[in-house]
Amino acid sequence: MIVRRTTARSKSRSNETYGTMQTQSLGDTGGLTQYGAYLQTLAPGATSSNRHWHEREDEFLYVVSGEVTIVENDGRHVLGPGDAACWPAGAPNAHCVVNASQAPCSYLIVGTRVTHDVCHYPDSGRTLRTEGETWRFVDADGSELRSGRVEPEW
Amino acid sequence: MIVRRTTARSKSRSNETYGTMQTQSLGDTGGLTQYGAYLQTLAPGATSSNRHWHEREDEFLYVVSGEVTIVENDGRHVLGPGDAACWPAGAPNAHCVVNASQAPCSYLIVGTRVTHDVCHYPDSGRTLRTEGETWRFVDADGSELRSGRVEPEW
Repeated sequence: MIVRRTTARSKSRSNETYGTMQTQSLGDTGGLTQYGAYLQTLAPGATSSNRHWHEREDEFLYVVSGEVTIVENDGRHVLGPGDAACWPAGAPNAHCVVNASQAPCSYLIVGTRVTHDVCHYPDSGRTLRTEGETWRFVDADGSELRSGRVEPEW
Repeated sequence: MIVRRTTARSKSRSNETYGTMQTQSLGDTGGLTQYGAYLQTLAPGATSSNRHWHEREDEFLYVVSGEVTIVENDGRHVLGPGDAACWPAGAPNAHCVVNASQAPCSYLIVGTRVTHDVCHYPDSGRTLRTEGETWRFVDADGSELRSGRVEPEW
């Protein structure tokens, strides 16, 4: 099934903490279920998320345009078009994506869809625990901050 | 883990039937195992493979540069940078990629790694059956053409 760049499902997020990010879900538009495949565009100064790593999901990033800064355990890396990043499931290399440039940057991001996962946010000590049809967001001291049902996002 | 475009593992295939294709395995270079993530570049006139569909693998394609022609059950589609194609597991939409232009074209292709799959080639009636650690290539009449052990490719 062909998914045109002009018609793929798209969402925008904008707030003071993380800035502006547009996400196009190419995979959901085309009916994929085994992994998510998204084109994300960060405005200058924006950040994708807090630094995190997944126990059970492989993540893959490919730079499409602009200058992308990846923050990993060992610091910052500046990537250009054609460069990639891989975060294998279970490798505790916490990462996020930052646009430290003066122009928008875009990258593809792919992540396996699994029914059970723990996502670690080492800068806060918090974890997001996906357990089948429910999820729990847990603070560093083990107390539950929020919980809910896993809902289709797109 | 950062995977630079200049250092990712790369292979080239060139023959009279399918033409010249270069494949960079970004995912294997970065240690991913749950899916393959490749950058493929087709020379003018080249074809990725015979038309096929998978019973158990989701496939995703994203055009990076040039003009990409996708052949599906319903015919040919010309895609440009930012366009995508999705082939969900089990949907019998047999596809291949062709470069019908006069310049190279490049696209990302992602496919789930599964231990058991049947890949159908409807133009010949043949199937490639992956059964754990072994594979069998079977003709339209059910006779086995070739078989072997599944080996790491990269």
